[in-house]
Amino acid sequence: MRSATIKELLSSKNLLQEITIKGWVRTFRSNRFIALNDGSTLNTIQCVVDFENFDEELLKKVNTGAALKITGTLVESQGKGQSVEIQVSALEVLGIADPEEYPIQPKKHSLEFLREKAHLRIRTNTFAAIMRVRSTLSFAIHNYFRENGFNYFHAPIITGSDAEGAGEMFRVTTLDEKNPPLTEDGAVDYKQDFFGKETNLTVSGQLEAEAYAMALGKVYTFGPTFRAENSNTSRHLAEFWMIEPEMAFFDLDANMDLAEDFIKNVISYTLTHCQEDLEFLEKRLLDEEKSKPQAQRSDMPLIEKLKFVVDNNFKRVSYTEAIDILKNCKPNKKKQFKYPIEEWGTDLQSEHERYLVEKHFNCPVILFDYPAKIKAFYMRLNEDGKTVRAMDILFPGIGEIVGGSQREERLDILKEKIKELGIDEKELWWYLDLRKFGTAEHSGFGLGFERLVLFATGMGNIRDVIPFPRTPQNAEF
Amino acid sequence: MRSATIKELLSSKNLLQEITIKGWVRTFRSNRFIALNDGSTLNTIQCVVDFENFDEELLKKVNTGAALKITGTLVESQGKGQSVEIQVSALEVLGIADPEEYPIQPKKHSLEFLREKAHLRIRTNTFAAIMRVRSTLSFAIHNYFRENGFNYFHAPIITGSDAEGAGEMFRVTTLDEKNPPLTEDGAVDYKQDFFGKETNLTVSGQLEAEAYAMALGKVYTFGPTFRAENSNTSRHLAEFWMIEPEMAFFDLDANMDLAEDFIKNVISYTLTHCQEDLEFLEKRLLDEEKSKPQAQRSDMPLIEKLKFVVDNNFKRVSYTEAIDILKNCKPNKKKQFKYPIEEWGTDLQSEHERYLVEKHFNCPVILFDYPAKIKAFYMRLNEDGKTVRAMDILFPGIGEIVGGSQREERLDILKEKIKELGIDEKELWWYLDLRKFGTAEHSGFGLGFERLVLFATGMGNIRDVIPFPRTPQNAEF
Repeated sequence: MRSATIKELLSSKNLLQEITIKGWVRTFRSNRFIALNDGSTLNTIQCVVDFENFDEELLKKVNTGAALKITGTLVESQGKGQSVEIQVSALEVLGIADPEEYPIQPKKHSLEFLREKAHLRIRTNTFAAIMRVRSTLSFAIHNYFRENGFNYFHAPIITGSDAEGAGEMFRVTTLDEKNPPLTEDGAVDYKQDFFGKETNLTVSGQLEAEAYAMALGKVYTFGPTFRAENSNTSRHLAEFWMIEPEMAFFDLDANMDLAEDFIKNVISYTLTHCQEDLEFLEKRLLDEEKSKPQAQRSDMPLIEKLKFVVDNNFKRVSYTEAIDILKNCKPNKKKQFKYPIEEWGTDLQSEHERYLVEKHFNCPVILFDYPAKIKAFYMRLNEDGKTVRAMDILFPGIGEIVGGSQREERLDILKEKIKELGIDEKELWWYLDLRKFGTAEHSGFGLGFERLVLFATGMGNIRDVIPFPRTPQNAEF
Repeated sequence: MRSATIKELLSSKNLLQEITIKGWVRTFRSNRFIALNDGSTLNTIQCVVDFENFDEELLKKVNTGAALKITGTLVESQGKGQSVEIQVSALEVLGIADPEEYPIQPKKHSLEFLREKAHLRIRTNTFAAIMRVRSTLSFAIHNYFRENGFNYFHAPIITGSDAEGAGEMFRVTTLDEKNPPLTEDGAVDYKQDFFGKETNLTVSGQLEAEAYAMALGKVYTFGPTFRAENSNTSRHLAEFWMIEPEMAFFDLDANMDLAEDFIKNVISYTLTHCQEDLEFLEKRLLDEEKSKPQAQRSDMPLIEKLKFVVDNNFKRVSYTEAIDILKNCKPNKKKQFKYPIEEWGTDLQSEHERYLVEKHFNCPVILFDYPAKIKAFYMRLNEDGKTVRAMDILFPGIGEIVGGSQREERLDILKEKIKELGIDEKELWWYLDLRKFGTAEHSGFGLGFERLVLFATGMGNIRDVIPFPRTPQNAEF
């Protein structure tokens, strides 16, 4: 007799069959009703025990968290809230969970408390729902790209190039940390390190993805990236997953079209395939927000918000238009911004982005054509000589979720830019080769996966949407 | 007019339509026939130029590797080998490729030469085919697990735990390499490092996956893992991708069943979806082997070999049976093994595995129930007290492709093992918690993704099946 999953049983029409099932006790009421969960679904199956027929000592071990093997008959449920239940004929406790010691009891635990128990928090409904949504979003991403003719490309994680300059990096080394070998002039001799040079953890796979796009046409990465920044905020991780599509022959408009279609598609897939989990997370968010003042509550319930994103066009606004809006908006005039907007060219802070997205437009916004000076060297210079073909997608409650651009494909202009920034051309020899041989317009973007999961689950802290978060002073588990 | 991909056009029935296409020149024959490729398929589309109508200077720029935009009419092909071709009405050179400088000319390049040009080798048929197969295998893996009720789980890459002991590790740090802060007793003060402790790159996500399996039931990882071993072989990388499924309530037999079904399924998917690429790689391998002595050639052509794996049961053999076979085999008796098999308990070397797989059984082999002493601490001890519920899958030409086990779920036995090995229990506090609270039998395995790609593509060196390989003294690009 094979073990069924609870998900299968709950939708089974095959009543009166004898089944065996294994799972963990969520609750045990009245010495009679065991709510059993096996992770295949948010729901539990009710297992009805005729306690006169079972050993008292055995039933004492049926505590929250215990692992059970149950044999019984699938019958129509007498109670409400479920269609089927199990009449238990045999019960085995595979693993106990002493209620005096087991921390995940059926009561409300704070998210902070659960973060300390990241190996057990997945046993709560909230985290199981989040991680199933995370898994479904991952699949939706692979599925979208495959259906649209992209090849998945594994960018290197350890990199000897630090030219991208997207942030501070972690060094990867096997040198003796206390007594590293030194060169004659007293510097650390990285020639003796594992890779024969100084190496770091990647901050982006984009440059390598460009090499692949310029041969395979459309590629994407989906892998871990790293920032050694000392940011202890609810939106930053030292280790996070990023998706970076890169497309030959795409200009910025095509890039924006793709990014919007992509986000809508993966959210739509998740709405279809994670209905129960999303309903649970919506309710969780409503409960959480009850204790907050009205102004801090979400405008829409979670599922309505996700549908809103799927059904509405993202608003496309140039940086220059955005600056006009911000210069003349009330909070700027009333000096309510921490960083007042005075002139064209300043970088936007999250307070400005939030104003645009949450107050002015009240929908996802794509900002494009940023000043060259505040953007990366590889972005394509516009005819005006001062803006670049960059775009950021800003989401309500999340801020920047996508950053992308059309890449500078003209060798001479790219070389000039590199020189201006004082980057050594030799560092980028292979990247320049892509412009030397068969260059063509191409574009791409990066999407921070955890920010998408934050948005899709309605959670507030990025540490709660990745299994084992890495942040300053924290690499437990 | 939207740009079509060459893959779409080659299967188009819609003749006489005007189309625009962008891609790179593979060859330009007789000043008339351009073979254009855009990475969407192995194949090129023939673009026919009426050279009297085009500027001579323009046509001089149509060299191998140049990027073109072509407008024309899709017509039935006059030549053989393709069904359709393009009558070119307009031609634009987007990016030149100077034949004096461009290294990827239409001639045979050695794989060694191409490794030095990893950013351009993807422009060859061989590497484009390999990487499309790699991408397809990746998707097949995600698809298989999703269809079978698994959740994708992102294991942490940076880890503070070094208890797994699977190999030498890379240190991850932001400390000043030359003058690291020291504690009072002169050791490096890792409390001042980014994570407040010594951290490394993960060698396996298994332990963390176990935590998730014991709540979600079935999970898998698919991410990068690292070994800081100085192995310069054709089968080792310092950075490689690994798939690690972990299943609650699975014993070793169920684990072996899953591993076999999984491998067959993903290879079968790839056979269906990568026919052209596999045919090309099969031909490449035949060509390569022509210069080798008969004994070193493959027994079967590539596609036949893949079908053989899909269609035949893997042979399951216990370690003890395998030792009997090896003890009594000719090469052992004739002292042809470098490491003669003398007694039960010795670890198998690759020469022994190869003998079993390639000579004795001549099919994929699953070895199970290994001596406890040569396997990891977390594997479940058998009743005999000396073997553990481990299994390795060995493939012809590849060696070990999967290593797995049923995990030790009994707290007392696991603690004893940890003590024997001198591991500090505190290091594994959370791993032991999984046995303390709701423990149950569970199993899993790890599959080295690049070894699977090696097998599926018939390539001989693992550096050629990952975009940018990392090996000792090499982290270029």
